[in-house]
Amino acid sequence: MAKRARPEAAQPPAERPPRVVIENVAPEIDAGRFPVKRTVGEQVVVEADVFTEGHDALVAVLRHRREGEPSWTEVAMAPVGNDRWRASFAVRALEPHRYTIEAWVDAFGSWAHGFERKLAAGAVEPVDLLVGAELVEQAAARAEGDEGARLRGSAAALRGDAPLEERARQALDPELRLAVARHPDRSGAARHARELVVSVDRERGRFSAWYELFPRSASPEPGRHGTLRDVVDRLPYVASMGFDVLYLPPIHPIGRAFRKGRNNSTEATPVDVGSPWAIGGPEGGHTAIHPELGTAEDFRRLVSRARELGLELALDVAFQCSPDHPWVKEHPQWFRRRPDGSVQYAENPPKKYQDVYPLEFDNPDWRALWSALLDVVLHWADEGVRIFRVDNPHTKPFRFWEWLIAEARRTRPDLVFLAEAFTRPKVMYHLAKLGFTQSYTYFSWRNTKGELTQYLTELTRSPVKDFFRPSFWPNTPDILPEPLQYGGRPMFQARLVLAATLAASYGIYGAAFEHMEGRAVRSGSEEYLDSEKYQLRSWQLDREDSLRDFIARVNRIRREHPALQSNERLAFHPIDNEQLIAYSKASEDLSDLVLVVVNLDPHHVHAGWLELPLELLGLRGDEPYQVHDLLGGGRYLWHGERNYVELDPASAPAQIFRIRRRVRTERDFDYFM
Amino acid sequence: MAKRARPEAAQPPAERPPRVVIENVAPEIDAGRFPVKRTVGEQVVVEADVFTEGHDALVAVLRHRREGEPSWTEVAMAPVGNDRWRASFAVRALEPHRYTIEAWVDAFGSWAHGFERKLAAGAVEPVDLLVGAELVEQAAARAEGDEGARLRGSAAALRGDAPLEERARQALDPELRLAVARHPDRSGAARHARELVVSVDRERGRFSAWYELFPRSASPEPGRHGTLRDVVDRLPYVASMGFDVLYLPPIHPIGRAFRKGRNNSTEATPVDVGSPWAIGGPEGGHTAIHPELGTAEDFRRLVSRARELGLELALDVAFQCSPDHPWVKEHPQWFRRRPDGSVQYAENPPKKYQDVYPLEFDNPDWRALWSALLDVVLHWADEGVRIFRVDNPHTKPFRFWEWLIAEARRTRPDLVFLAEAFTRPKVMYHLAKLGFTQSYTYFSWRNTKGELTQYLTELTRSPVKDFFRPSFWPNTPDILPEPLQYGGRPMFQARLVLAATLAASYGIYGAAFEHMEGRAVRSGSEEYLDSEKYQLRSWQLDREDSLRDFIARVNRIRREHPALQSNERLAFHPIDNEQLIAYSKASEDLSDLVLVVVNLDPHHVHAGWLELPLELLGLRGDEPYQVHDLLGGGRYLWHGERNYVELDPASAPAQIFRIRRRVRTERDFDYFM
Repeated sequence: MAKRARPEAAQPPAERPPRVVIENVAPEIDAGRFPVKRTVGEQVVVEADVFTEGHDALVAVLRHRREGEPSWTEVAMAPVGNDRWRASFAVRALEPHRYTIEAWVDAFGSWAHGFERKLAAGAVEPVDLLVGAELVEQAAARAEGDEGARLRGSAAALRGDAPLEERARQALDPELRLAVARHPDRSGAARHARELVVSVDRERGRFSAWYELFPRSASPEPGRHGTLRDVVDRLPYVASMGFDVLYLPPIHPIGRAFRKGRNNSTEATPVDVGSPWAIGGPEGGHTAIHPELGTAEDFRRLVSRARELGLELALDVAFQCSPDHPWVKEHPQWFRRRPDGSVQYAENPPKKYQDVYPLEFDNPDWRALWSALLDVVLHWADEGVRIFRVDNPHTKPFRFWEWLIAEARRTRPDLVFLAEAFTRPKVMYHLAKLGFTQSYTYFSWRNTKGELTQYLTELTRSPVKDFFRPSFWPNTPDILPEPLQYGGRPMFQARLVLAATLAASYGIYGAAFEHMEGRAVRSGSEEYLDSEKYQLRSWQLDREDSLRDFIARVNRIRREHPALQSNERLAFHPIDNEQLIAYSKASEDLSDLVLVVVNLDPHHVHAGWLELPLELLGLRGDEPYQVHDLLGGGRYLWHGERNYVELDPASAPAQIFRIRRRVRTERDFDYFM
Repeated sequence: MAKRARPEAAQPPAERPPRVVIENVAPEIDAGRFPVKRTVGEQVVVEADVFTEGHDALVAVLRHRREGEPSWTEVAMAPVGNDRWRASFAVRALEPHRYTIEAWVDAFGSWAHGFERKLAAGAVEPVDLLVGAELVEQAAARAEGDEGARLRGSAAALRGDAPLEERARQALDPELRLAVARHPDRSGAARHARELVVSVDRERGRFSAWYELFPRSASPEPGRHGTLRDVVDRLPYVASMGFDVLYLPPIHPIGRAFRKGRNNSTEATPVDVGSPWAIGGPEGGHTAIHPELGTAEDFRRLVSRARELGLELALDVAFQCSPDHPWVKEHPQWFRRRPDGSVQYAENPPKKYQDVYPLEFDNPDWRALWSALLDVVLHWADEGVRIFRVDNPHTKPFRFWEWLIAEARRTRPDLVFLAEAFTRPKVMYHLAKLGFTQSYTYFSWRNTKGELTQYLTELTRSPVKDFFRPSFWPNTPDILPEPLQYGGRPMFQARLVLAATLAASYGIYGAAFEHMEGRAVRSGSEEYLDSEKYQLRSWQLDREDSLRDFIARVNRIRREHPALQSNERLAFHPIDNEQLIAYSKASEDLSDLVLVVVNLDPHHVHAGWLELPLELLGLRGDEPYQVHDLLGGGRYLWHGERNYVELDPASAPAQIFRIRRRVRTERDFDYFM
C-alpha cells in the first residue's frame, strides 16, 4: 500500500501514551478542587478503576506522602472486582497529606499467568520458557547488586537443559515472581491526572462533645452579671458531665445603639444587657473583652483552668459590628453607606436589625478587611483558643473563609472551625468543602425514623462523608425545637442519645438543656422565652430532676467506646415499630460494637422485633450473644437475628447496648461477668 | 487594635475572587476529560449548582459555541430548586461544540426583591429608592446610546419628587428590570473552571438499524462463492425490510496459512474458504478486496447502489493479520517475535489462533503502525464508506483509538464507529468515552424483565447515557443466545421487538435471523452450527415462515415514530406478571408516545394489569384514550391508570402501541379514525 500523504496534524503523538487507564478515583471531591478530611491516625481508603486493553496483568500503587515530604510512600492496590482496585493509608501527622495512583502493565506476571494455563493444559512449548527468561533478564538489568545476579541466574536456569517440568516449576516460583516485581518497568506507567489532598485535623475535629454557656449567666447570685471568674467556678460542673469543649457566645463589648431588650424587644431599658452578637463598644471590638465579664488575665486563667479539667474553650467568631464598634469610625470603608450617608444596618426585608452593621466585603479596601479578620482569629489563637464556632459564615464570601481557614491553619494546624450555617444544603456542604472542620446540621429538625435514617445515610454513606463532619445539636440558643417544647424529659433524653450516638460530634446549649427548659416565647416559635441572648438567666444547678447524671453517663459511654467516636461504620437495622429506631456503630478495627435503640414517642411504651445482620456484625448465628445496656445496666442474652426490645419512655426512652461478640460456655474456664 | 505583623504569604489574594460558586455541572464526563455525545439537532440540557453567600439574586448563563466560532452564544439559566439551575441548547452543525457556565450577582434584582418586600410591609424609606436609582445609573453608565439615556431618565424619576407610591411603581417596572439586566456588571462573574465539549454526530450515530450479511453467501446458486455483484442484487431485499445500514464482515483477501475449516476445524480442506477475519494474502491486506468477491469497481457500484436504496455500507475494521498478510514481510517490526524468531500468533492460553497474528503496538516503530492503520480507515472513507464496525477494539491500546477516531473525524465528521467490544463493563464504557459512536452491549444476555429493566436504567438514566450509545443485537455471527436456540419464532419476534424499541440503534445478523436459524454447533455453545464464519451458506429467501415482513413492519414503525429514535425518554411501567415487560418512549417534543408490551415467555399466553403514570405521559385521568397496536393493528379504548393486556406468543408475542393523547367525544366535530 502506498503511504498516504497527510498533513502534519494527523501524525501520531510524539510520545507513546500510557496503556493503563486510571479513572473514577475515590475519594476525590470536585475533581480534586477540595481536600478530603481525616484526623490523625485515621485511614484513607482509596479506590479507582484501573484497567488496560486486553488481558495483561497490572500493578497499581497508591502513592501518598505528607505535604512536606519530598518522596512518595507506595502501597500496592488490590483488585476488588469489576476492575476496581483498593488500598489505604493512615494519616500520621497533623499536616496535609497527598495521594495519587500509578499503574503499569506487569509483563512477567502476564506471561506467568498464560504459562500456568498452558502448563495445566499440557500445551507448553520450549519457546514459552525463553519468553519468560527474557523478561527475567530485563528485570535483572533494572536490578542492582546481588538481586540482579540472582535474577540472571534464574533466567539462565529457565534457558538451561533441565527437564521442562523442572524449569516450569522454577519459572512459576513465587519468590521469582516477587523478585521480578521488585524491579518493574515503569517507563510506560500511567498516573492519575491529579494529586489529591487530605486535610488533617486532630482527634477533636472528629470526636467532640460541646457545652454552650453564657458567661453572664454563670453568676451563682441571681441578678448579678456573671463573669469569667464565675465560669472558672462552673468548670467542674461542666467537666463532670464529660464534655470536651466549652463554647462561649461572644465575650466582647456590646453596643449600646439600638440595643435589644428582653425577648428581643426593640425598646431596651438602661439595665438591659443586650445581645452579645452586637459586638463592639467604646471599650473595643472583636479582640476586646466585655468589661463586665472581666479582664484578659481572667480569660487566660479560664483557658488554663479549663485545660486542666480536660475542657477546651471555644470562642464565637461573629464578623459583624454594633454601631459603636471602633471599626465604624476607624474603617468607614468597611461598611456600606446608603446614599444619605448613613451606614447600612443588617436587614432581611422587611425585618431590620439596626443594632448590627454587616461588614461590606465588596469594598475597595477589602484586603485590609480580610487581614483584620484573620488577625481577630490569630489574636484569640495566641490567647490559647484552638476552637472557633463561626456565626453565620454563609453570609460572608466563600473564598474569604477558604483563605482565612487555610492561613490560620497553615501555622496552627490544630485549629478547629465549626460552621454555624443553618441554610440551604448546597451552601452548607460548600462551606465544609472550603475548610470548616465541623458543621451544624438539620438534625434539630429530623425527628422521625424515616427522616433520621435518610439524613444519616446521606451524611455517612455518600461522598459528603469525606468533607462534611456533622455536629448534632438538640438545642441551641436560637433553636428550641417543637418536640422539646412538648415532649418533656423523655424527649430530652431521646434527643440527647440520638445526637450523642448518631454523630461523633454533638453539643447542647447547656443549663437550658439539662434543666429541660421547654418554654418558647410564643406558640409556633422556636425562640426561648426569656432567652439568654437578651438577658441574664440564673440556673439552679442542683435541681433534683436535672439531666446532669444522664448526660454524664452518655458522655462516659462515648469516651469508652471508639465505635461512637466516628461516623464511618453507622448502620441502621430494621425494627417493626415506626416509633423505635435502631442502629449500630463499630470501631475501625471492628473490636467495639455498640447498638442503640431509641423510643421516639415520649408518651407511650413501644416494643418491637429487632433484626440484626449477624454476619456483618461479626456474630455467629449459632451461639447466643450478650447485649449489655450501658445506660440502664441491664444484660440480655440474645439468640439469632431477631430479638425483642421494649422501651418505656418514662423510665428509659433509649438503650445503648454494648454487644459482646461471644458468650463463653461451660467449656471455657471463666464465665463472663 | 494594633496591626499584627505577618509574613507575606498570609496576605489576601491580589484579585478579589468571584463570589458565585458554580459546581456539580452536568453533563460533564470525568471532569471534562471526555466529550458528551449528541447528534445534529439534539438538545444539550445543562445543569449546575449555582449559589452565592447570603440572599442576593443571581444571573447564570449557559455559554455555548461551535468549535470554530470565536464568540459564545448565551442562554439564561433558570433555577429549578435547591440551588440547581438549568438551560439547554441545540447542536446545529456537524462539528464539536463547547459549553460552559458563567454567573454573577444581580445587584439591581437583589435590591428590587428586598424593596418589593419592604413595600408590601409598608416599610419603605425614601433612601431605599435612592439606592435603586444608583444601581440604575450604574447600568446606564455601562449601556450605550438610547438605552443609556433612557436608564438615566428612569434613575432621575426614582430620585424625583413624585409621590413615593408612584416612584415605587416605576422602580419595580418589569421593563426597567429587563433594561438594567441587559447591562449587568460582570466584572466579578464566576466561570466554571472548564470548557466542556460536545462531540456531534449525524443522525445515523443515534438512530440506525443494521443488517449484517456475508457477501460470499449472497450467491443465489447454492455452492457458488458469492460476490459483491450478488450483494448488489440482494440490496432490494435488505432495503425492503427497512434497514439503514448494511454491514459486511471483512471483504479482504483471506490467509491460507493455518486456515480454519468448517465449524472452526483446524484442518482445512483445499475448498474451505477460511475466516474473513484472517486478513491478508498475497493479493493484499486491509485495503485490498478478496478476488473471489470482486473488484474495487464492483465495490464502488455496491456503495452507490446501496445509497440509492437508502442503505449505507458499513465495513469491518479488524486490525489483525493472517500470516500471509503483506505487512508480515514489509513491516516485521509490527509483530511480536518469539525468542525462536517465529511470529507470535494470537492466543488466549491455552487456546491458540495460529491463523491470526496480532499487531504489536508496543514496538519502536509504533508511530508508523498507527499511521498505516489510520490510512486503512481513510482509504475506505475515500471509497465512500462512512460507517465502520470495529472488531475487538478492547485488545488494542485505548489511546490509539482516541487518536484514530479523532483524526479520521477531524476531516470527515460524518464517520461512525461501532465498537465490537464484548468485555468488562468499565472497558466498554471507556471505549465509548474515547470516541466510538456506538457500542455493542450485553443485551444479547439480558432476558428477564429484571435484567432488562436494570440494564436499560443504567444505560439511559445514569451519566453513561451521555457518552455510550448502545446498539442492541439479538444475534451476531459469534452469538446465538440460548433463548433463540430453544424459543422458536415467538422468541425471535420478541427479541427483535425488544432490540428495536428499547434501543434507538440495533442490528441483526441477517438471513440467520429472519430464517430463525437456532442450531448451535453443540449444546451449551453459542456458536452457530455450520457457521458462515467458516463456510458458504445458502439462504432460501422466499421461505413462507420468514420473519421478513415482521421485521419490515417493526422498522417502519421505528421510522414513523420519533419516540423510538432516541433513548432519552424511556420509562418502564409496572405490570403484574413477571413474563410481561412494558415500557414507553416519547419524542423530544413529547408529541409522539409509544408503548411496548412484550411477552418474554415464548410458550404460554400471559396476561396482566398494566399501570401507566397518566400525568407524566400527558394523559388526562378522566377521559378515555385510544391505544393502537401498530404491529397487530388492534385498537383499544383504555380508561384510567390500570388496563388489561394479554399476549399470545403464538400469534403476537409483542404489541407496539401508539398512544393517542385524547379521544374525541360527540362534542367534537370529527371522530377519530
